[in-house]
Amino acid sequence: MNITLKDGSIIEAENGTTAEQIAKTISEGLYRAALVARVNGEIIDLKTPLTGDCTLEILTYKDDEGREVYRHTAAHILAQAIKNVYPAAQLAIGPATATGFYYDVDLPFAITLDDLEAVENEMKEIIAADLPIEREVVTRKSALAQMQGYNESYKMQLIQELPARSKITFYRQGNFVDLCRGPHLASTGKVKHVKLTQLAGAYWKGDEHNKMLTRIYGVAFEKKSEVEEYLAKLAEAKKRDHNKLGRDMGLFMTEERVGQGLPLMMPKGAKMIQIMQRFVEDEEERRGYMLTKTPYMAKSDLCKLSGHWDHYRDGMFIIGDEVMDDEVLALRPMTCPFQYMIYKNGLKSSRDLPCRYAETSPLFRNESSGEMHGLTRVRQFTLADGHIVCTPEQLENEFKGCLDLCEYMLGTFGLREDIFYRFSRWDPKDREKYIYEPKKWKEAEDTMKTILDDLGVEYVEGIGEAAFYGPKLDIQSRNVYGKEDTLLTIQVDMFLAQKFDMTYVDENGEKKTPYIIHRSSIGCYERTLALLIEKFGGAFPLWISPEQVRVMSLTERTADKCKALTDELKRRGILATVDNRNEKIGYKIREAQVDKVPYMLIIGDKEAEQNVVSVRHRNEPLGTMTFDEFYVKIRTEIDTKDLGIKG
Amino acid sequence: MNITLKDGSIIEAENGTTAEQIAKTISEGLYRAALVARVNGEIIDLKTPLTGDCTLEILTYKDDEGREVYRHTAAHILAQAIKNVYPAAQLAIGPATATGFYYDVDLPFAITLDDLEAVENEMKEIIAADLPIEREVVTRKSALAQMQGYNESYKMQLIQELPARSKITFYRQGNFVDLCRGPHLASTGKVKHVKLTQLAGAYWKGDEHNKMLTRIYGVAFEKKSEVEEYLAKLAEAKKRDHNKLGRDMGLFMTEERVGQGLPLMMPKGAKMIQIMQRFVEDEEERRGYMLTKTPYMAKSDLCKLSGHWDHYRDGMFIIGDEVMDDEVLALRPMTCPFQYMIYKNGLKSSRDLPCRYAETSPLFRNESSGEMHGLTRVRQFTLADGHIVCTPEQLENEFKGCLDLCEYMLGTFGLREDIFYRFSRWDPKDREKYIYEPKKWKEAEDTMKTILDDLGVEYVEGIGEAAFYGPKLDIQSRNVYGKEDTLLTIQVDMFLAQKFDMTYVDENGEKKTPYIIHRSSIGCYERTLALLIEKFGGAFPLWISPEQVRVMSLTERTADKCKALTDELKRRGILATVDNRNEKIGYKIREAQVDKVPYMLIIGDKEAEQNVVSVRHRNEPLGTMTFDEFYVKIRTEIDTKDLGIKG
Repeated sequence: MNITLKDGSIIEAENGTTAEQIAKTISEGLYRAALVARVNGEIIDLKTPLTGDCTLEILTYKDDEGREVYRHTAAHILAQAIKNVYPAAQLAIGPATATGFYYDVDLPFAITLDDLEAVENEMKEIIAADLPIEREVVTRKSALAQMQGYNESYKMQLIQELPARSKITFYRQGNFVDLCRGPHLASTGKVKHVKLTQLAGAYWKGDEHNKMLTRIYGVAFEKKSEVEEYLAKLAEAKKRDHNKLGRDMGLFMTEERVGQGLPLMMPKGAKMIQIMQRFVEDEEERRGYMLTKTPYMAKSDLCKLSGHWDHYRDGMFIIGDEVMDDEVLALRPMTCPFQYMIYKNGLKSSRDLPCRYAETSPLFRNESSGEMHGLTRVRQFTLADGHIVCTPEQLENEFKGCLDLCEYMLGTFGLREDIFYRFSRWDPKDREKYIYEPKKWKEAEDTMKTILDDLGVEYVEGIGEAAFYGPKLDIQSRNVYGKEDTLLTIQVDMFLAQKFDMTYVDENGEKKTPYIIHRSSIGCYERTLALLIEKFGGAFPLWISPEQVRVMSLTERTADKCKALTDELKRRGILATVDNRNEKIGYKIREAQVDKVPYMLIIGDKEAEQNVVSVRHRNEPLGTMTFDEFYVKIRTEIDTKDLGIKG
Repeated sequence: MNITLKDGSIIEAENGTTAEQIAKTISEGLYRAALVARVNGEIIDLKTPLTGDCTLEILTYKDDEGREVYRHTAAHILAQAIKNVYPAAQLAIGPATATGFYYDVDLPFAITLDDLEAVENEMKEIIAADLPIEREVVTRKSALAQMQGYNESYKMQLIQELPARSKITFYRQGNFVDLCRGPHLASTGKVKHVKLTQLAGAYWKGDEHNKMLTRIYGVAFEKKSEVEEYLAKLAEAKKRDHNKLGRDMGLFMTEERVGQGLPLMMPKGAKMIQIMQRFVEDEEERRGYMLTKTPYMAKSDLCKLSGHWDHYRDGMFIIGDEVMDDEVLALRPMTCPFQYMIYKNGLKSSRDLPCRYAETSPLFRNESSGEMHGLTRVRQFTLADGHIVCTPEQLENEFKGCLDLCEYMLGTFGLREDIFYRFSRWDPKDREKYIYEPKKWKEAEDTMKTILDDLGVEYVEGIGEAAFYGPKLDIQSRNVYGKEDTLLTIQVDMFLAQKFDMTYVDENGEKKTPYIIHRSSIGCYERTLALLIEKFGGAFPLWISPEQVRVMSLTERTADKCKALTDELKRRGILATVDNRNEKIGYKIREAQVDKVPYMLIIGDKEAEQNVVSVRHRNEPLGTMTFDEFYVKIRTEIDTKDLGIKG
């Protein structure tokens, strides 16, 4: 048979030769580095015999797919180690992640991070033993019998759920066997460095009605230095984690009696959101948006008309019972239908379009308790929401305007370099999620693709990530741990204008259905605040700092002067506080640094006498200047929305 | 017997003499004017025989009680007229109001305002017939039998509900008899001028589970000129009615599918609320308040702790079922417990007090459908809410600060002359509404009374008007129709700090319970907006106008100039629009007047050439000036928050 390599060269080999053998003929180095092979586009085990002409690529740790299999094999090593350490454990599933792997297990007792040391040591033993990993094709009957023998009820359930006639494969290493499609590395010794990092709860199949399992996270890298680098980055990330730092800094809190996913913004956090909100509302007004303020709930009739009742009901908070009560109300998960009602108030002509409506809009989504996290996944949040109603001719320009606004906002908040674009399309197979009108979907997606390509937006595609009423451009961000979240979205809607009987009269006096763009400008204020906390590690740009200047007395004699300076700063609209406590100045400075206050003014006898202020910017002393010089400096920094990022 | 008159003089009369007879002995004028009598403090019919020594006052139309009986008798005349015109009608109740009367009737068909003409004419006939009105004491049995004879089932129900052994009285005029405690005028001819004004629906006993009856409203006055004056005032009020004018001006709308009591603020209304909100938040910050932003719902646990669950549950929106669901959530009717949680975050010492927390707080109350009205009685509203946690020593000063803020706000919005103060106290008999701790209530009410008296606040008292947790100073307003509403409130709370285990450490290191003041600064934004609409008839002061300047082209040639001036005004923060339509200038001006735009700039060739603007302030032409002169003028008017009320 002829084997075509990546560089185009052709190797002749006997039928049944394995990729591993071919790697060895190419070079000893490649043989040692080889992890899996891509044969005719499919990733397979190195030891699988090749049959017939094919293309072949040997994948190593340098390849994305190579690393993925590497980490998937690490997950199997974890599973084997768990069973060795805790024979009563039942295994569920264990995939690779971006930096490692996890395995969900059902343990008859709770374990702590300390317990993971024994498991990790056991993993290292399995790696040292370099057990060969072998693939077996088994019948369903044999698969079930074997798993019953191991008391693996989750695996049995997975086998039973496999479609009839599907090929069932097991992967065996030493005394351990796992149900797995593969592929895998050739032996456990191919995995070099692992580290267990974290424990979490996870519902079986992600469904909160199922049992909560224990999820054990780990990382797997080729080099020890990579592990160390990762752990250092993780430690740094933990320091920036908004869910810790935001609480420590007194930006927000949660409270058991209030409930999960319902954070309380404390004065400093509320101040930051107020600053952001005013900036966003003013910028939107400047760009021709009209602000609305609509109710946070409505009769179920409204959600039925919009389709939310059918497509989104589980995520909604419902008040009342359809059978028992005259009236059923729902807290709104979206602002759309409310702004449509405002559009519908009064006849519109094409002269009135585009109508750009904006709202600082509290929304409610009934997240399951396992999903909720800090300020990023909550049950009530405030979206800088908005809808543009426009003619087909205006669509591209309006879409461009939305994108420009998003990019301006992200740039102003210093988040522009941290995001990427996703073109989220529907999944025609998901009949439950999507309004099934393939022609309309094609039209909408084609329109949107043309716009994106015209604008030169670079994006990845996400099938099945569209809203139920149309495709979206999602602007995605990652948190400190690398977890992906949607920060902003611009959506083209082909359905709802018609459902809501929204019309306009065109130049010829004809009634037409407009297009709708659903959009945000800075996303949810809570989530954006979380990103800002993590991005800046709490040391915010001056213009969004909840405390901009702290004035400190060096001695009791200058306390009045400090108070007067603080009052003058406040009068000029600066968020200033005074620290006139009878404490050492070093102590006061350290406290201000912990609070991450951008500027400190230190006033001793000398400064008071010379009528100057001694200025400190976080860790950096800036020397003395007159009060007016200082004011002009910070006023400029605030007015230009300086991000304070140097170089 | 000796009869002591109001002036202290004593008249001797035979036992059984009536007040009417005595009036006649005093003067023919008094006899003619006499309506009822106050005997030993009780109001009785003029024809009731007096028995034994007593004090006597003859009441006329000049007396509040005289007018009330006058209007109550008018209600009976209405009832008789209804029965004459619609024999199938069943009567419910019919009291006097501040300017007239109403009667609730159950009609087997719907009637319109036009139908009232026949009823009003029938009333005039009854008045002209001058039928004597006679009081009869009847047994319960006879009362029931008579009412059954008239097919008056509501009256029968009222009779059955009277306590055992209570005296039952009927009042008879001609062929008509009504169950009534009285008193009444001596004859139907004593009522001079009546006018039926309005129709409404009203539930039997005000309970929405009961049948909806037809309520017929009327006015009754002594002089025809009073009726005319009233009708003119009513017509003027109707023009200013926020529920009509606010819709006509595009400030807000409602929508059947959204639901009752859930108004949607349209762009102009939302803009006004944004202006108000920013002003209030900034002024509060200036006065040392810290803004918070807390969730709009919480687990029922929180409401149980605050007492809202026990004392306010019917008025709350509840999500979930206590029996069926793991978690029951409630939309918040008040902000209190959320801000308490923020206070409790971190140990507080007396140095940290007072803590002044403010929040622009959406609240939810499940009003019954009969109660809801425009922007004043809604199911979701936004309160400029706040709580001050302070030491007992700080209480008076903090209370004074709250009052000063309220008065400043009311003054700035031009509402100060329209309000009055009510000291709202508890009702010890209402065990359901109030936390029953008489000693604490006495302490709180005494403390508050001392403060109010110290501050020289003039107030009326309202028994049973307190919050369930403490007495209140309510700042009351009236709408265009004279209906009273609470606009603002300042409350002293003796209970909740303890319930929530809120403490501070005093100078001696001892744990103490603080006082709490619940307060608002401008009340609910929606209600305040309603008041402003009615106060200014939609012609708002410039600083809160949603559209401040409209620039109009006199000819197509100046359209670009108009656009440029509008953009420059917007750039300078003025809410400006442009009207470059190809319409006559008179038409454009009239439209701007209908929209109640404060300033119009009219630009023709001459203005463009001379680089000036022609200015109009509502109906008044102000001549030409340079653009900068105009800008300085309106900038000053905005910055000084000029109310535009002259003289």
